[in-house]
Amino acid sequence: MRCGDVEIGEGSFTIIAGPCAIESAEQALAAAKAVEEAGAKVFRASLFKPRTSPYSYQGIGAEGIEILKAVREETSLLLETEVLSVNHLELLHDHVDMLRLGTRSMYDYELLKEVGETKMPLILKRGMSATLEEFLFAAEYVLAGGNEKVVLCERGIRTFETNTRNTLDILAVPALKEMTRLPVIVDPSHSAGRSSLVGPASKAALAVGADGILIEVHPSPETALSDGEQALDPPAFLALMGELRALAEPLGKVF
Amino acid sequence: MRCGDVEIGEGSFTIIAGPCAIESAEQALAAAKAVEEAGAKVFRASLFKPRTSPYSYQGIGAEGIEILKAVREETSLLLETEVLSVNHLELLHDHVDMLRLGTRSMYDYELLKEVGETKMPLILKRGMSATLEEFLFAAEYVLAGGNEKVVLCERGIRTFETNTRNTLDILAVPALKEMTRLPVIVDPSHSAGRSSLVGPASKAALAVGADGILIEVHPSPETALSDGEQALDPPAFLALMGELRALAEPLGKVF
Amino acid sequence: MRCGDVEIGEGSFTIIAGPCAIESAEQALAAAKAVEEAGAKVFRASLFKPRTSPYSYQGIGAEGIEILKAVREETSLLLETEVLSVNHLELLHDHVDMLRLGTRSMYDYELLKEVGETKMPLILKRGMSATLEEFLFAAEYVLAGGNEKVVLCERGIRTFETNTRNTLDILAVPALKEMTRLPVIVDPSHSAGRSSLVGPASKAALAVGADGILIEVHPSPETALSDGEQALDPPAFLALMGELRALAEPLGKVF
Amino acid sequence: MRCGDVEIGEGSFTIIAGPCAIESAEQALAAAKAVEEAGAKVFRASLFKPRTSPYSYQGIGAEGIEILKAVREETSLLLETEVLSVNHLELLHDHVDMLRLGTRSMYDYELLKEVGETKMPLILKRGMSATLEEFLFAAEYVLAGGNEKVVLCERGIRTFETNTRNTLDILAVPALKEMTRLPVIVDPSHSAGRSSLVGPASKAALAVGADGILIEVHPSPETALSDGEQALDPPAFLALMGELRALAEPLGKVF
Repeated sequence: MRCGDVEIGEGSFTIIAGPCAIESAEQALAAAKAVEEAGAKVFRASLFKPRTSPYSYQGIGAEGIEILKAVREETSLLLETEVLSVNHLELLHDHVDMLRLGTRSMYDYELLKEVGETKMPLILKRGMSATLEEFLFAAEYVLAGGNEKVVLCERGIRTFETNTRNTLDILAVPALKEMTRLPVIVDPSHSAGRSSLVGPASKAALAVGADGILIEVHPSPETALSDGEQALDPPAFLALMGELRALAEPLGKVF
Repeated sequence: MRCGDVEIGEGSFTIIAGPCAIESAEQALAAAKAVEEAGAKVFRASLFKPRTSPYSYQGIGAEGIEILKAVREETSLLLETEVLSVNHLELLHDHVDMLRLGTRSMYDYELLKEVGETKMPLILKRGMSATLEEFLFAAEYVLAGGNEKVVLCERGIRTFETNTRNTLDILAVPALKEMTRLPVIVDPSHSAGRSSLVGPASKAALAVGADGILIEVHPSPETALSDGEQALDPPAFLALMGELRALAEPLGKVF
Repeated sequence: MRCGDVEIGEGSFTIIAGPCAIESAEQALAAAKAVEEAGAKVFRASLFKPRTSPYSYQGIGAEGIEILKAVREETSLLLETEVLSVNHLELLHDHVDMLRLGTRSMYDYELLKEVGETKMPLILKRGMSATLEEFLFAAEYVLAGGNEKVVLCERGIRTFETNTRNTLDILAVPALKEMTRLPVIVDPSHSAGRSSLVGPASKAALAVGADGILIEVHPSPETALSDGEQALDPPAFLALMGELRALAEPLGKVF
Repeated sequence: MRCGDVEIGEGSFTIIAGPCAIESAEQALAAAKAVEEAGAKVFRASLFKPRTSPYSYQGIGAEGIEILKAVREETSLLLETEVLSVNHLELLHDHVDMLRLGTRSMYDYELLKEVGETKMPLILKRGMSATLEEFLFAAEYVLAGGNEKVVLCERGIRTFETNTRNTLDILAVPALKEMTRLPVIVDPSHSAGRSSLVGPASKAALAVGADGILIEVHPSPETALSDGEQALDPPAFLALMGELRALAEPLGKVF
């Protein structure tokens, strides 16, 4: 799958990195430059955040569009962001290169149908308790609309185990590859839930045959408005990128 | 909670019954009359169906509105239907008395916010892998919008067990009642997944202190376009209503 | 199934009650007399406790045999106790009327085979993550040894939900009854995990068609050496028994 | 941890390979020679099989001892086997180098205590629904008995997903390493459940920091009496070993 200059699948290991949420222009630009320097190809950053509590930080909203424009001007990264509602589609359409549907939206078939009509590249995250079969059917809602640019993202499932935020179903990657030609990436951040496990999760993703990772990097995780405990800071991200590069070679993956 | 003439909570056991989906005027009217006669107070029937596969029956859609009008004319039942998207809200607003958010929509916070603004009574079904805490926070999105007419509905959770369609978390009912004053009802049909278990599930709901049930009744389950295997036919529903009435008395519940 | 004078199954609702563990003669006798007075037919009390941590209270062990003898003398209750290992079988054989295999032992096929040879009535608890099919196969290990006196006990399964100690799979009761003629009882204490939910769980068990309950009652739960938070004290147990009796009648169950 | 000449942990990646069950001398010797040639250090093979159904193959039993002796004579592999019951301990003591407790035995605290007294190296597999905390407490039962030679083995947990036999909880490996100094290995065969996923699971184990794998290899999987669908044949195992060796270098693991 091609998105601008970026190839996803076909022997590449694509790095999509950035903060959980865009908090300010300074934060977004610092994150974007750091991940670009380290080798990421796509910048992830949400304007709208689906939060369990209505009283938690809900994202910067539409005013973040100006920040996305600044990131586009100052870096060569592609932009990826989460869409929560059909109401966001028009707003986001011209300002990002890829859409993301989060784990809570995988079953939102009305939204999937509308994304199918946009023809925009989509990262579709697995529902936190979705079977692989349901996951593929959700993708099918987009494909059936004529949009073939779907990337599947394993991000951990909900189980009885609470040590990690979610249980990374690492074998979902090769299992999906037996069932579909769509690229499959891994979100090491939401599965791990804490930064100390993000590196191992990323390496497992590469080893198991994933086509990339969607990873949270924040210029100062300790002050992040959301998900700080699972974000890498730029030096940790840079170090991880080095480890992944070394691992990619024997696996025949191009970085 | 009062909705028209119907009281939910406060010692009542409210029966919300009807087919999974409205398929035709004949089917809807037959179902409505049967459930009214047996003692149901609210008619459930969906125009829009969220289906795992895009190639499954997706519901009758907007043309079902005329059928809802006919049910309103020919019975005294209140009408309840599922809303899948903010796009449906305006269409449904004048034609039903209660909205329902299904298990796949519990995490759809944008939709919850908009339902909060309608002030319409809402049946909020638990996400199939939602914790009770997340369930209450989802309700809070509606309450925070100024809509206090929320009924919580336990409908079974996803577990490793496949004998039943979902695992009815029956103790969620008293557990929720320790945490909130909102009424709590049970969907015996989606938890059981087969009609032979719908009766026991309904009786367990009553025994455990639920304020009602949301139950699938179809005039001819074997020809239903969706969920036929878990629907009761009118004679079975009538028989179950008799059993529930006998059980309600020692439990101090008014029918 | 008949065990001494006690019938399990066939329209009876049998109450098996007592403390989690035998702690002393005083505690055991106080509990036994209280449950007998309230209408229980079988006294449950473990000498050996399987505890997650090796540093938790492991039970009174073999010296509890003398206490069991005293309970036998001073009440007409049948005695039931947990067996953890083939090494316990001989010791317990003459001093109890029923054996119990706990949730951790359901997959212990070597122990099941040996219990099959004793011909002693057995309460077999479902493994905390066992499917119904595996549960029935575990019973089959006992039946295949020639021991047909097996009572199945649903006690809650492990799921993502942490509000309750386990998720009571209440529909397992009617589902099992579609698959086997063995009696099926419910443990409301281990599923609920807190005393406030034990009553609702017991009523659900009765309503759904169970043949009895296995319930924890302790003379002073706040000082119990294990599981105190889920034990009922004698007055609460007595009150619950009254509620269950009132509910049994419309359900056609003999107490 | 040292077991004979074999180091587990401390930068090694130890391969423990062999058939699910010993079926005959021919099969065992063919498997042993094949895995030794490919670089395995320990031979796994069970004499006693815990099977869900009492009517499934239960293992060769005590007569397999002679076969173990033959494997010892004809190869330099260490021998590892499963112990199901305290009754097996004496029989196996002199004929194997390592014991294994399977997923169904993790909660068998009486057996853990007795293994603690043998001082024999133990591979302790995680219960299929055990939390990491319970897993460590189970190991603690052995350690508390004075036996420090415990290797933890992640083998997949039970979840709602049925595409794989179990869900490999790959992040349990680094999570455990944050909590204990005991070596941690992975069983790629039981988590994957089919041979096509065993390679990816093994590579993920290596990438994530495991100290080895416990892997099923059978001379002719299609005729295996148990678990044939998840066993590798010798050529596939040899090929996988090559891939693992190439991957070990950038990870700093010695093979």
